[in-house]
Amino acid sequence: MERQNRQAGSADPLSLPVIDTDTVVIGAGPVGLFQAFQLGLLGLSTHVIDVLPEIGGQCVALYPDKPIYDIPGVPLCTGRELAQQLLAQARPFLPADDSGRINNLHLSDQVASVSQRADGGFAVATVHGLNVRCKAVFIAAGAGAFVPRTLNVPGLNDATHVPSNVHHYLPAPHALDNTTASWANQAVIVAGGGDEALSAIIALDQVPTDARPALLTLLHRRDQFQAEPALEAQVRELMAQGRVQLALGMPSGASLENGRVTALQVLGPDEQTRTLPLDQLLIRQGLSPKLGPLTGWGMTLERKQVSVSPDTFESSIPGIYAVGDINTYPGKIRLLVCGFHEATLAAHAAAAALRPDQPQHLQYTTTSALLHQRLGLI
Amino acid sequence: MERQNRQAGSADPLSLPVIDTDTVVIGAGPVGLFQAFQLGLLGLSTHVIDVLPEIGGQCVALYPDKPIYDIPGVPLCTGRELAQQLLAQARPFLPADDSGRINNLHLSDQVASVSQRADGGFAVATVHGLNVRCKAVFIAAGAGAFVPRTLNVPGLNDATHVPSNVHHYLPAPHALDNTTASWANQAVIVAGGGDEALSAIIALDQVPTDARPALLTLLHRRDQFQAEPALEAQVRELMAQGRVQLALGMPSGASLENGRVTALQVLGPDEQTRTLPLDQLLIRQGLSPKLGPLTGWGMTLERKQVSVSPDTFESSIPGIYAVGDINTYPGKIRLLVCGFHEATLAAHAAAAALRPDQPQHLQYTTTSALLHQRLGLI
Repeated sequence: MERQNRQAGSADPLSLPVIDTDTVVIGAGPVGLFQAFQLGLLGLSTHVIDVLPEIGGQCVALYPDKPIYDIPGVPLCTGRELAQQLLAQARPFLPADDSGRINNLHLSDQVASVSQRADGGFAVATVHGLNVRCKAVFIAAGAGAFVPRTLNVPGLNDATHVPSNVHHYLPAPHALDNTTASWANQAVIVAGGGDEALSAIIALDQVPTDARPALLTLLHRRDQFQAEPALEAQVRELMAQGRVQLALGMPSGASLENGRVTALQVLGPDEQTRTLPLDQLLIRQGLSPKLGPLTGWGMTLERKQVSVSPDTFESSIPGIYAVGDINTYPGKIRLLVCGFHEATLAAHAAAAALRPDQPQHLQYTTTSALLHQRLGLI
Repeated sequence: MERQNRQAGSADPLSLPVIDTDTVVIGAGPVGLFQAFQLGLLGLSTHVIDVLPEIGGQCVALYPDKPIYDIPGVPLCTGRELAQQLLAQARPFLPADDSGRINNLHLSDQVASVSQRADGGFAVATVHGLNVRCKAVFIAAGAGAFVPRTLNVPGLNDATHVPSNVHHYLPAPHALDNTTASWANQAVIVAGGGDEALSAIIALDQVPTDARPALLTLLHRRDQFQAEPALEAQVRELMAQGRVQLALGMPSGASLENGRVTALQVLGPDEQTRTLPLDQLLIRQGLSPKLGPLTGWGMTLERKQVSVSPDTFESSIPGIYAVGDINTYPGKIRLLVCGFHEATLAAHAAAAALRPDQPQHLQYTTTSALLHQRLGLI
């Protein structure tokens, strides 16, 4: 089972109240967001859960600013723009409260288990203690949960206990500015040599003086980066100014104390092992998709994809649907346009299964007063 | 067989040169346009044929300005906007020449026959004399060909001979301005009582004085219209000014002379039959979908839909695909989002069938240099 790292300072929320809803969508990528929209149009409530800290899935995590040309009716957009448009479209069903929080969208969390309930529904539990009771589950998990690559060091990638000062995502600026979560005057090591690591170093250097780490170290195995030239130039300049240290080598061990890492042992290019003391360790080595816990739910899989029926996109477990890149069926092509269709048919199939007594009369958003009402237009 | 009315003054183009292309798409609605885009991405050339004088199919013909809310990533658009965006997206494969003409988009024409050729390809012939040789045909004809409703009068709806001065579409303003096609000083009857008829009357009243018909008559069965109040108010004002005559009654006969209608016999509400002489008759009674000639091509149909396989969207005739509202398969929902998926899979299936020796390696518009080249980006 994959374990998601906690945000600094957050307590274990083991006793959250149980949420009751019609459906759970696993994945807030483009297809998961459109799944929520289609479910909403059909009058089914939903909670969306995603392991990443942002909506948009792979599109935003891997190529947020790259152009996409093949979304029907959208000659050109970036992954980030597409995700924002899909969220705007699903807004009637993923409403934000006054503080901007969307209460049925759960980011930075990962579904740990889905179990069948006696009433025919499902209990969905997350690694952060969320418990959701629902009637149908939609897996829109793309290539799987995109989880950060960690360091291959004993004590750091033990799934049952991640040290509290090891991070894979940069805390939000307001968190760093906040005294309790602040990294002010601390020794911070950023591990990695790609865009993610270099942009994190730059962001940490730019926090206001009273919140700035005292020592910023970039740890990478060699003095060459795989990053945008502009980012590299900025970091080289920070090194030249003495604002950032570069430590070269491969981490070989970690000193642990009271559930925290206090130092890393690093084997340098000179074959010497050095000890780097630290207060916070930010591992920025990119994301890697993991199929994660769903391999254990008993669904029929084929080459790590969930086998589905092409008329309902239901898996071999009735009530669990799979849409987008995670599924497979004859003719499957891994394109977003196909995932949108799959989400549409899956929503209609679920609505028919959950409301067998109601006529399944197709309504159009152009003309249906009921759909206009659900969209909040009237 | 449906017969499409000719534009005023156009000669019978019976000896047009044969066009050779990879594919023919029947229908320039949203799904047909996206079909052309997907075929282009896969390196297959195409000619698109539609019975309507404009792109956009039913979306533009029936509800051009009504909002659509369920196109993925497009929270709100009108039918006309969607069609324009899809044309813009398909532009690399439907390029306009200097005069703005798209040489592989054939509007106001209708496919009359599709016949298998000895080489395994198809010969597509239209009612206007277009002959296209291709390797695969994509039927994206929606509810069928949207053909104008005509008057139920002997001599007017004879499929083998439509009088040359009977029209169902208003000629373009530049055609009316042009001396050869001009309706200047002529007696023009517009038949109908809906938006289409009233807006045609207004447009004809507004042509410059030297091109204006001498007599403009609106022919409708009663003195009540089913039209936008603003349109009705404008036409009532034109009547009050004596610029437009209103003739009430049901046409019961037509006088024909040298392939032209010279007068209509109209049975009035007073049970009297009157004769209305005319130079041009414009019938504006809306559009009605007709499945048309494709019922005779030998494909398996199910309740007037083309039965297709859901992994290729191929019909029972190899090489003829059907996508969008015209097809049926288990789970089918008649939504645009589904048609876009179907067009995508059909394009890939056709490419695989036409190029069996080439590896079918899925490429993404975000990253593929080959696709960027085909899109004209590099």
